Amino acid sequence: MDKAQQDALKKAAGIEAAKLVKDGMIVGLGTGSTVRFLVDELGRRVQEEGLQFTGVTTSRRTQEQAEGYGIKIVNVDDVEEIDVTIDGADEVDDNFNGIKGGGAALLWEKIVAINSKKIVWIVDESKVVETIGKFPLPVEVIPFGHGHVVEKMEKKGYKPVLRLDADGNPVLTDEKNYVVDLHLEKIEKPFELQEDLINMVGVVETGLFLNMVDEVIVGDPDGPRILTNPNK
Amino acid sequence: MDKAQQDALKKAAGIEAAKLVKDGMIVGLGTGSTVRFLVDELGRRVQEEGLQFTGVTTSRRTQEQAEGYGIKIVNVDDVEEIDVTIDGADEVDDNFNGIKGGGAALLWEKIVAINSKKIVWIVDESKVVETIGKFPLPVEVIPFGHGHVVEKMEKKGYKPVLRLDADGNPVLTDEKNYVVDLHLEKIEKPFELQEDLINMVGVVETGLFLNMVDEVIVGDPDGPRILTNPNK
Repeated sequence: MDKAQQDALKKAAGIEAAKLVKDGMIVGLGTGSTVRFLVDELGRRVQEEGLQFTGVTTSRRTQEQAEGYGIKIVNVDDVEEIDVTIDGADEVDDNFNGIKGGGAALLWEKIVAINSKKIVWIVDESKVVETIGKFPLPVEVIPFGHGHVVEKMEKKGYKPVLRLDADGNPVLTDEKNYVVDLHLEKIEKPFELQEDLINMVGVVETGLFLNMVDEVIVGDPDGPRILTNPNK
Repeated sequence: MDKAQQDALKKAAGIEAAKLVKDGMIVGLGTGSTVRFLVDELGRRVQEEGLQFTGVTTSRRTQEQAEGYGIKIVNVDDVEEIDVTIDGADEVDDNFNGIKGGGAALLWEKIVAINSKKIVWIVDESKVVETIGKFPLPVEVIPFGHGHVVEKMEKKGYKPVLRLDADGNPVLTDEKNYVVDLHLEKIEKPFELQEDLINMVGVVETGLFLNMVDEVIVGDPDGPRILTNPNK
């Protein structure tokens, strides 16, 4: 599948997910290339159809894009609860466990997600996998002492790589932390891994989103498919 | 005990602990009113006795004080391991479980501590308690979504209070996070509490330092007492 085809599937998933947004709702808006199509479609509906809703964004990038369409954005702390959050994912398996954070926004994404009544992910079919882990697992770490955290991860066999930008400097998250990507290939026991990582001093949060999502909308060449999590 | 008496005990503990520092060592320097006396004494030895050691500091405050004495300070990531870290504590019990973070430096303190061969706390006798928890437990939280974290802590009965400065703004840690103090009065199961708090999305670290300290030097009116942790 080439990039144009993949983009078409992402766009189809984004447009399908936009239908979940109704007047008056508080909507969590994720981050990433698939979410860009969602926000474009929501922006179109706001401008052409007069749709009115309030957004809560998970990154500065999404906030800028949404505000460009005149969508009202508020802080997560200004709302009681979010009606639905629509976000992308880097991988999702049959048990609705996923990896997020390829775009370095995992922390804000997770904070918005846990304050949402319903969580929907939009992905193209390449993201649906049997076992997560081929996509490197992003972990947000505190800059102070990060070298020792990376070293401890190394000793545990987690194959950590500090994420760098084009200039060779550590990528900074919106909270000014670093991202370490774990090249695990296969994560057989994601709950145990989460437990181990979150207890490491210096780790802020991981990109493991385990049994959190309610629905996954998959952009498929035959049209969007909806997978519903039976355990939520 | 009045403040002058308490200061005298803190100072005695600080001077006793300074004896642990030898030429060529890498020494973790904590934060707080008792550590100030330690750094004063180390500064005196550097200037009067030619003591040479390298410090790793746990806050910008301690760094400034130490550098004022000409003590060489390096970043925790620039050293392989720290020989000994000397820090204060807000409370410590018979099982060598403690609370730290009254001075909002708990995260950097914990990062320095876990990279140390030996951890020593210096306290006045008022800090030695039967059960920790009377001192409010500091928890470092991410600003984004902190209101929801506080609300969830409230529902769990943890009696959270967001720490504010004199102007009514949230106190910022050196990592630009917020501090929430939990008014628990008694922490009967500190390990379970740590487990619960660290798994809350938005919590970076807690002020629970459980079975981490090797020695506690207690400033006592009869002279400093040393308590040695048998389980380390």
